[in-house]
Amino acid sequence: MSADREGGTPPQPDTALARLPVEVRKSATGWFADMQEDTLAQEVPVALVYNGISHAVMMASPSELEDLALGFSLTEGILAHPHECYDLELREEAQGLAVHLTIATQRLAELKQRRRSLTGRTGCGLCGTEALEQAIRPIPAVTAPQLDDAAIQHALGELAAYQPLKAATGAVHGAAWCDLHGRIQRLREDVGRHNALDKLIGSLARDAAPLAEGFVLVSSRASYEMVHKCASAGIGALVAVSAATALAVEQARTAGLLLAGFARPGRHLIYHRPVAAAAMAQC
Amino acid sequence: MSADREGGTPPQPDTALARLPVEVRKSATGWFADMQEDTLAQEVPVALVYNGISHAVMMASPSELEDLALGFSLTEGILAHPHECYDLELREEAQGLAVHLTIATQRLAELKQRRRSLTGRTGCGLCGTEALEQAIRPIPAVTAPQLDDAAIQHALGELAAYQPLKAATGAVHGAAWCDLHGRIQRLREDVGRHNALDKLIGSLARDAAPLAEGFVLVSSRASYEMVHKCASAGIGALVAVSAATALAVEQARTAGLLLAGFARPGRHLIYHRPVAAAAMAQC
Repeated sequence: MSADREGGTPPQPDTALARLPVEVRKSATGWFADMQEDTLAQEVPVALVYNGISHAVMMASPSELEDLALGFSLTEGILAHPHECYDLELREEAQGLAVHLTIATQRLAELKQRRRSLTGRTGCGLCGTEALEQAIRPIPAVTAPQLDDAAIQHALGELAAYQPLKAATGAVHGAAWCDLHGRIQRLREDVGRHNALDKLIGSLARDAAPLAEGFVLVSSRASYEMVHKCASAGIGALVAVSAATALAVEQARTAGLLLAGFARPGRHLIYHRPVAAAAMAQC
Repeated sequence: MSADREGGTPPQPDTALARLPVEVRKSATGWFADMQEDTLAQEVPVALVYNGISHAVMMASPSELEDLALGFSLTEGILAHPHECYDLELREEAQGLAVHLTIATQRLAELKQRRRSLTGRTGCGLCGTEALEQAIRPIPAVTAPQLDDAAIQHALGELAAYQPLKAATGAVHGAAWCDLHGRIQRLREDVGRHNALDKLIGSLARDAAPLAEGFVLVSSRASYEMVHKCASAGIGALVAVSAATALAVEQARTAGLLLAGFARPGRHLIYHRPVAAAAMAQC
């Protein structure tokens, strides 16, 4: 993928694939079986370990896991800035993969404090959240770029060509970083849509990519968490192939994030366009 | 939805919908805007509270939340049997919705023990999991039903008609319970695919539905967790509209669960068919 040579870790799609025998059932005059080898997406437990403390485990595609670890740390507020991560190492352990991060002492202290203040088993759907008052976290304000229809459509048209895991398996999500002409600069894939976005954000952070000069396109829907992750990373525009939820729109309004969705050839929805971005678009 | 009159809570799709103004951008000779009201899926934080202890919060569609609470409790092993839940009450609280469950003393003691043994903030993607050794939980053995191609295809053909939230918003997942002829008996919808499945399982459990006489069809992919949830509930067959992951197939083999996917008109894949079910299918 030429765009990836320009920045970020090169994709390693082979490690994220498995070949398995399947029975393809087809209907002609009657049903018959066609035994084939099929390419499936791997899904493995990945632990994130901060200065020796195992903090979270997620199911993920085993590729670009350093990007995932850094992106997750930033979008979940464990790190405020990429330079607070001093070291990042992927290790194969007995039960799965682990990314070991060495982070700034201050951030580790905050993480420990956060862990102490929450008791026990938590967090389905919302990372580490066990009570309602923690559910909707404050969302930072962002500056939305001027994004025109042609750019959205151009990125949409390029999307499939940048998703090798999707092409091989049909079962993974993609998150792309696009310039303001809609040219895809890099894309990350994962069995989980949040992971794909975290991988992309981690990759952008590692390269200190200029976030004012582009937008994110995701192959999935836009939920609360997708908008929150973008804003937390300082990204001002999110385009989703599928629909947004009402809460995602509300959060985009609060953050001043441009949110578009239901992007199909020749048609897309603008769920929220901040006033400044709208004024510029009309120039 | 006639099937739902037969069992489970009637769907309340209206509470799960929001109307918002959107800017529809269309391309003709040039791009133009069509301001419309659009129907979006609600996404709200829902807390599960066991005997007064807030245990987990998830983002969910605010419908059939009692089903979600019971299904989640069963598939996550908090309850071993539905009758261990004595009471279940949905309450509107300041920051969101909460389902208050009153559960058996023994189960509460186990839940407290589990909470004590895990420290702090955990669980992204895998509920409450902070270390690799907890990631892949033991999966119970199930008995797969005899499921023929026609039943899979019949259920697939019925699916769209049973998804009112999907029809209105395009942004939610569905999980259907089908008899062995492929007739959909009930369906639950949610912005999260795990939630949709938990809602379905909770609804089946509340009615003590005979699980040997049917299968689950989900509108999404089949990941590790979807297979695990089905097996945990005693369901022997899962059909996914989209692909399975390699780990999902591995887990289906371990559990003896029939796993099918990529279900399209006239074609589907059998990822795993247990020997007994295969022998019966050939009779």
